[in-house]
Amino acid sequence: MGLGMSLGAAAQKPHDRLNAWLAADMDAVNLMIRTRMASEHAPRIPEVTAHLIDAGGKRLRPMLTLAAARLCGYDGPFHIHLAATVEFIHTATLLHDDVVDQSERRRGRSTANLLWDNKSSVLVGDYLFSRSFQLMVETGNLRVLDILANASATIAEGEVLQLTAAQDIATTEATYLQVVRGKTAALFSAATEVGGVIAGVAEEQVRALYTYGDALGIAFQIVDDLLDYEGSDTSIGKNTGDDFRERKLTLPVIKALAVATPEERAFWVRVIEKGQQAEGDLEAAKAIMARQGAMRDARDVALDWAAKARAALAVFPSHPLRTMLEDLADYVVARIN
Amino acid sequence: MGLGMSLGAAAQKPHDRLNAWLAADMDAVNLMIRTRMASEHAPRIPEVTAHLIDAGGKRLRPMLTLAAARLCGYDGPFHIHLAATVEFIHTATLLHDDVVDQSERRRGRSTANLLWDNKSSVLVGDYLFSRSFQLMVETGNLRVLDILANASATIAEGEVLQLTAAQDIATTEATYLQVVRGKTAALFSAATEVGGVIAGVAEEQVRALYTYGDALGIAFQIVDDLLDYEGSDTSIGKNTGDDFRERKLTLPVIKALAVATPEERAFWVRVIEKGQQAEGDLEAAKAIMARQGAMRDARDVALDWAAKARAALAVFPSHPLRTMLEDLADYVVARIN
Repeated sequence: MGLGMSLGAAAQKPHDRLNAWLAADMDAVNLMIRTRMASEHAPRIPEVTAHLIDAGGKRLRPMLTLAAARLCGYDGPFHIHLAATVEFIHTATLLHDDVVDQSERRRGRSTANLLWDNKSSVLVGDYLFSRSFQLMVETGNLRVLDILANASATIAEGEVLQLTAAQDIATTEATYLQVVRGKTAALFSAATEVGGVIAGVAEEQVRALYTYGDALGIAFQIVDDLLDYEGSDTSIGKNTGDDFRERKLTLPVIKALAVATPEERAFWVRVIEKGQQAEGDLEAAKAIMARQGAMRDARDVALDWAAKARAALAVFPSHPLRTMLEDLADYVVARIN
Repeated sequence: MGLGMSLGAAAQKPHDRLNAWLAADMDAVNLMIRTRMASEHAPRIPEVTAHLIDAGGKRLRPMLTLAAARLCGYDGPFHIHLAATVEFIHTATLLHDDVVDQSERRRGRSTANLLWDNKSSVLVGDYLFSRSFQLMVETGNLRVLDILANASATIAEGEVLQLTAAQDIATTEATYLQVVRGKTAALFSAATEVGGVIAGVAEEQVRALYTYGDALGIAFQIVDDLLDYEGSDTSIGKNTGDDFRERKLTLPVIKALAVATPEERAFWVRVIEKGQQAEGDLEAAKAIMARQGAMRDARDVALDWAAKARAALAVFPSHPLRTMLEDLADYVVARIN
């Protein structure tokens, strides 16, 4: 029976295993999120926040903070504050992203900008940003404040870079990586790094946690960009083809452009650069990317980053959380299979 | 000649006298703002920021931080960081406010949301918020971090409250005060309070600086709201009548509603609650408010707050900066004469 349970556990998704292992901590984080999203004077704030928070989401980022802290043997109270901080920053960026991208669906629901208005999304996002700073200040740890303030700046910078790089078919893989580091990996790496810092472990382990989060975040975002072409609306909880309609230069498009025939190049110029999109163009784009192996090439890049994430954890002694985090790195790429 | 100069100085506006007294500090703040608004990867960020920063603005908030710190005898380096922090928070809220209010003019220029787009204003605002947190973390002072994080949350909460209170003619003076404390006074009081905290003065003086900033901010915003009806487009650098068009319940409207005849009430219901505004309604609103003494009543409230601000500084020994700050309190109300 012990073996059966263990086999059963091994068959579970790493995300679910982390959730089970960290259940008490996650409950404390959810309670803190619920308490801190309240507003004495403006009921609109918890309404908008709850719409997004209650929709589920995987709580991946706070779980990374908890897992990192516990892997490092932390047993104080502040990993809960930091995990809630990370989720608040994430929620704030989602609210603002949906305004910027004029998105209509998120986590299988209508977006807040559609249900209320852009104003509410902007201001409630600002409120959650401020709340996240209050939470991290409560830890009294200046180094985690420094890490999270830097991550916030990198996130915003990555979003602006994405805005100005959109529609530019000369965008390189290096620029794409910069955007991805900003919009996704910066918060992943901060989430894991602060877990180690609050636990007070040696620099080598702190650096390893940073590297793990950075590489995991990059792999995660590349797969997200692939799913925007390959996934189904139900599986990703938002509309597929959004990146195509917003003319974003994501990795599969960059890969396809690198080996494009003159006819294909003309197609990309028309739909991405000039934005002249017609019925059937999304399907045509997918067909080109499949023919050129662009999807496979992009997936290979994601696999490399996942391997880098897994390898980073080698500095830690054997531990169930280390195994779960290693498996998580493989899983974020496996979800496109 | 000494007397002549001194009379000349006394005739100057208190804001100009503060600027002259703090000239070296203000230069350092401007240099820090210029350096920290840069972005290695996203040139759009300094473009948008410079558009707003270069348009002038009075730099009133950073000046308050510098004046408070110097009045308290501070001679370290961090009042510069804190003053730049305060100006970044202010600039970020202006960028977001102009998106929320769909404003077209600010400081005599077209707004960033009009020149670029809402997306840039939202994301560059987020970047400046993050930059402000980086700057305050550099001071290494957890208490100023706490004060500024709380102020940021109060600002966002006040903005959301304003959003939901707009168009509601049942809005009370108490709710108006809450909104004003959030959108304006919270940053004024944080600006002055952190000046005292970084200088390490006694609690009585820190509290006095908080009270001064709070009362000054309230007086300032009431006058701003009066100018939106009484000022000229040139004098306020933005379009007059914006509050009326956005159906905001500012103090003169609340005062006029409190003593409205049935006909006047019907007018307010139509233009503010139902938003059915026609040519000539702004002039009609001004005529009602003048007839009812609503402008004068609102100005009296502002005068009371200015007196409270002035009185708060009595705990400080005689000092040229104390005199300038006292005179500033009178001046923010006098600008409507």
